[in-house]
Amino acid sequence: MTEAAQMAGERAGRRGRSGGGAARRAERTAVSVETARFIERNIPDYEVLDARAIEVIEANAETVLEEIGVVFSDNPEALERWRQAGAHVDGERVRIPRGLARKLCATAPATFTQHARNPARNVEIGGRNLVLAPVYGPPFVRDAEGGRRYATIEDFRNFVKLGYMSKWLHHSGGTVCEPTDVAVNKRHLDMLLAHMVYSDKPFMGSVTAPERAQDCVEMCEILFGKEFVAENTVMTSLININSPLTFDGIMMGALEVYAKANQACIISPFIVGGAMAPVSVAGTLTQVLAEALAGVAYSQLVRPGAPVIVGAFVTSIDMNSGAPTFGTPEASLITYGMGQLARRMGLPYRSAGAFCGSKLPDAQAGYESANSLNMGLMSGVNFMLHACGWLEGGLVASYEKFVMDADQLGALHQMAKGVDVSEEMQAMDAIREVGPGGHYLGCAHTQANFKTAFWRSEAFDYKPFETWDEEGARDTQTLASARVAKLLGDYRQPPLDPEIAQRLTEYVEKRKASMSDSFS
Amino acid sequence: MTEAAQMAGERAGRRGRSGGGAARRAERTAVSVETARFIERNIPDYEVLDARAIEVIEANAETVLEEIGVVFSDNPEALERWRQAGAHVDGERVRIPRGLARKLCATAPATFTQHARNPARNVEIGGRNLVLAPVYGPPFVRDAEGGRRYATIEDFRNFVKLGYMSKWLHHSGGTVCEPTDVAVNKRHLDMLLAHMVYSDKPFMGSVTAPERAQDCVEMCEILFGKEFVAENTVMTSLININSPLTFDGIMMGALEVYAKANQACIISPFIVGGAMAPVSVAGTLTQVLAEALAGVAYSQLVRPGAPVIVGAFVTSIDMNSGAPTFGTPEASLITYGMGQLARRMGLPYRSAGAFCGSKLPDAQAGYESANSLNMGLMSGVNFMLHACGWLEGGLVASYEKFVMDADQLGALHQMAKGVDVSEEMQAMDAIREVGPGGHYLGCAHTQANFKTAFWRSEAFDYKPFETWDEEGARDTQTLASARVAKLLGDYRQPPLDPEIAQRLTEYVEKRKASMSDSFS
Repeated sequence: MTEAAQMAGERAGRRGRSGGGAARRAERTAVSVETARFIERNIPDYEVLDARAIEVIEANAETVLEEIGVVFSDNPEALERWRQAGAHVDGERVRIPRGLARKLCATAPATFTQHARNPARNVEIGGRNLVLAPVYGPPFVRDAEGGRRYATIEDFRNFVKLGYMSKWLHHSGGTVCEPTDVAVNKRHLDMLLAHMVYSDKPFMGSVTAPERAQDCVEMCEILFGKEFVAENTVMTSLININSPLTFDGIMMGALEVYAKANQACIISPFIVGGAMAPVSVAGTLTQVLAEALAGVAYSQLVRPGAPVIVGAFVTSIDMNSGAPTFGTPEASLITYGMGQLARRMGLPYRSAGAFCGSKLPDAQAGYESANSLNMGLMSGVNFMLHACGWLEGGLVASYEKFVMDADQLGALHQMAKGVDVSEEMQAMDAIREVGPGGHYLGCAHTQANFKTAFWRSEAFDYKPFETWDEEGARDTQTLASARVAKLLGDYRQPPLDPEIAQRLTEYVEKRKASMSDSFS
Repeated sequence: MTEAAQMAGERAGRRGRSGGGAARRAERTAVSVETARFIERNIPDYEVLDARAIEVIEANAETVLEEIGVVFSDNPEALERWRQAGAHVDGERVRIPRGLARKLCATAPATFTQHARNPARNVEIGGRNLVLAPVYGPPFVRDAEGGRRYATIEDFRNFVKLGYMSKWLHHSGGTVCEPTDVAVNKRHLDMLLAHMVYSDKPFMGSVTAPERAQDCVEMCEILFGKEFVAENTVMTSLININSPLTFDGIMMGALEVYAKANQACIISPFIVGGAMAPVSVAGTLTQVLAEALAGVAYSQLVRPGAPVIVGAFVTSIDMNSGAPTFGTPEASLITYGMGQLARRMGLPYRSAGAFCGSKLPDAQAGYESANSLNMGLMSGVNFMLHACGWLEGGLVASYEKFVMDADQLGALHQMAKGVDVSEEMQAMDAIREVGPGGHYLGCAHTQANFKTAFWRSEAFDYKPFETWDEEGARDTQTLASARVAKLLGDYRQPPLDPEIAQRLTEYVEKRKASMSDSFS
């Protein structure tokens, strides 16, 4: 019996309790972990495209779809769906008449709810909302003590735990790091199990093969109940487009599984500018829009109404070294622009993250990540993957950077509130009370409001120089190391019905027993 | 004879050359230093205040001026000016009837040119422009090798040199650090001389006493010619309001000197939220607007048409420790909001900077500074003081942070260009040429545009992990140290007419000889 099966807990309250004494004991000892509600923006979107730019880019994207077309590789069924829909299919090339893709996109919902096993953690994806999810995909991890090394399933579980403990993170994410010590064909089982048992936040499913996506659906049926999954979205999974203009059979196979099961997909071009798209903002936006239109349209051919998110993962390139670069102005312009285009499609938008190219959680990482996080908030992103923990161009999940970024996400929540001009916040009585030359610290308005007035970092240093110096003159990374240790030390598993935990474990064990290890 | 007098050089081209062989030798050996033109924004301003919020805040600011009023301390002449203008003066309290301050502000110019001794470095302040100037005021400096220590005149000169060598910095600034080894009453002479001889970018004058402001005017008359100074703005100086609602005699005395001489002042509340203003965004905006209206109006009473900039230096406070905090969301909201209010006054706006509370140029410094720099660009700031070098809440000028921030300023330039939808930048030919599954690196469009396509940091690391690791796994601070050394090593003085240099030195020596050292 594995760790998961040993857990005591209770099933999420939505569908009533089960389990006996173990569940009740777990409930009594559970640590209450505060998670902020997803961000509801009360600030405007920042829009860099004027009416003419939008017109040009949207027209060009239709031209790309109509004249150049897209490729659906290794996927005869997809070609047949497109043919039926009225596209011109030539080999694997699909040319889509003007307006058809956008028309097909219209059946996708503007917003949807992704359910968590703890309903208090459900997220609404779309509209004015912003849902924050951690880093996705790094094969390496780094911490101050151990340096950079291949990620393991233990690291994976640690990052799920850190995500669960992070107040400003609404989502447990997906491949928070690659558990390289587990066979490739079995990883998804251990990863999904970890999200399910170590966290009660919503999560993502596997996309590395259609049958692995199917495993994820079946595990969700155990966790949430088969009927519930048939009627509700419980996974949001990341489907990358193979830019330029190519949709490969494996990713589309996973999309088909999820769309048929009414589970959400992020349909996302993955673009290093200058390599997978032109070296211009307008050209890249054109291609990204064409890819998004084709991808979303295809999801609606599979199942009209299937929930999707329009994605844009776009970064620039260092033309000296060929390395992708992050937190750069061109990527910001594209992110802002694609936000406008996604809103005009009437769909939720995924982009941005705590992107950086730095090898260390140092000043470079701070500048680049803050640039990216700010653009994410202000471009109207609805689902921000990679919102914390990303290092070295996404090759590395950093323990210290995870908690630094996760802390900064609190600033986004506060910023999103906008300006409150209620009578209390106008503070005219305070200005009168204090008067010229006075001091606000002691006035009644300050006393009444100071606890919630200013966002406060829990990861940064605010101490006087002398105190900070006496305490060892610690930099942000050193402070973050201590915070990682504290959060992991304080971590307690959220309650889960032991019967469900056991069924999940049995499913994973049975599936694993049916396969031989594969590392591809 | 001092260093300045020994310099060879030539006077800026505008008013013809003078000087002989020494000047010609200097010209031959001078290093050409590239400085970017000030930013001309092709992107929109970000606006957080809706029509109702603007109406409420503007009405409340008038109520503050009318009912609470402002104090002009130790300044009978100012009180008399206000009385003549129609305000109600009671002791040192000045109550300004609704609308009067705003009406008086109307004579201030919407934009003005600040001249540099090298006319290629002139800056236009106002409109869609953004002029970037370095850190102002720190009594300490820090570098990786020497740690934190009191600043000296040698540090001051080094920072002026670094500013001169920084491509993205348009302005040499003012008190880039406090030369604490020079008597307080003589510092302004050495500081101004350093800006004049070690740089050819525009600079700021002293504001610590009216007679020191007068010295600055007279030194400018030597540098630019008396007639030129009478007709043109050659200094932009920082006049802080003693918030809440107090204008002290010394600062106003300096303002009076500059305004009479048609030199520009930044009239700027200096606010730590919760201490010098209410703990709410709307309340702080109300007070800042009231202070700005009163201060600008006063400048126009001194000399209608005198160039001014509306300032807002606003930061939040850590209610646990009382320390000011930087790069926080409340400060961003205030900065965005005050940008809107300043534009409605029709005046140039000063705010933001590379603000941070961190003691070190570490990740905290990076996040906080990037937050502040981005808000500065997007809030429509026209003059950004503290755009580089700021550390530890402004107590410290950091060598390493100076070059890190100065590098990031390049990203603001690129971002400000916005989205170009010219036919070339639409890149449709490239998308056609490459097609689905292709690669853009070699295509004609990429070849034609890659050199200018993406902004590239000169301070950050973009190397592959292995190369970076072999080269010592340097963090941003370590890389920045090397950059500081290189820039200072490459530095060459910009040419200056030796006769002018000598007259400046003589002026400084004569003025110093007339005073005994004072350290207050």
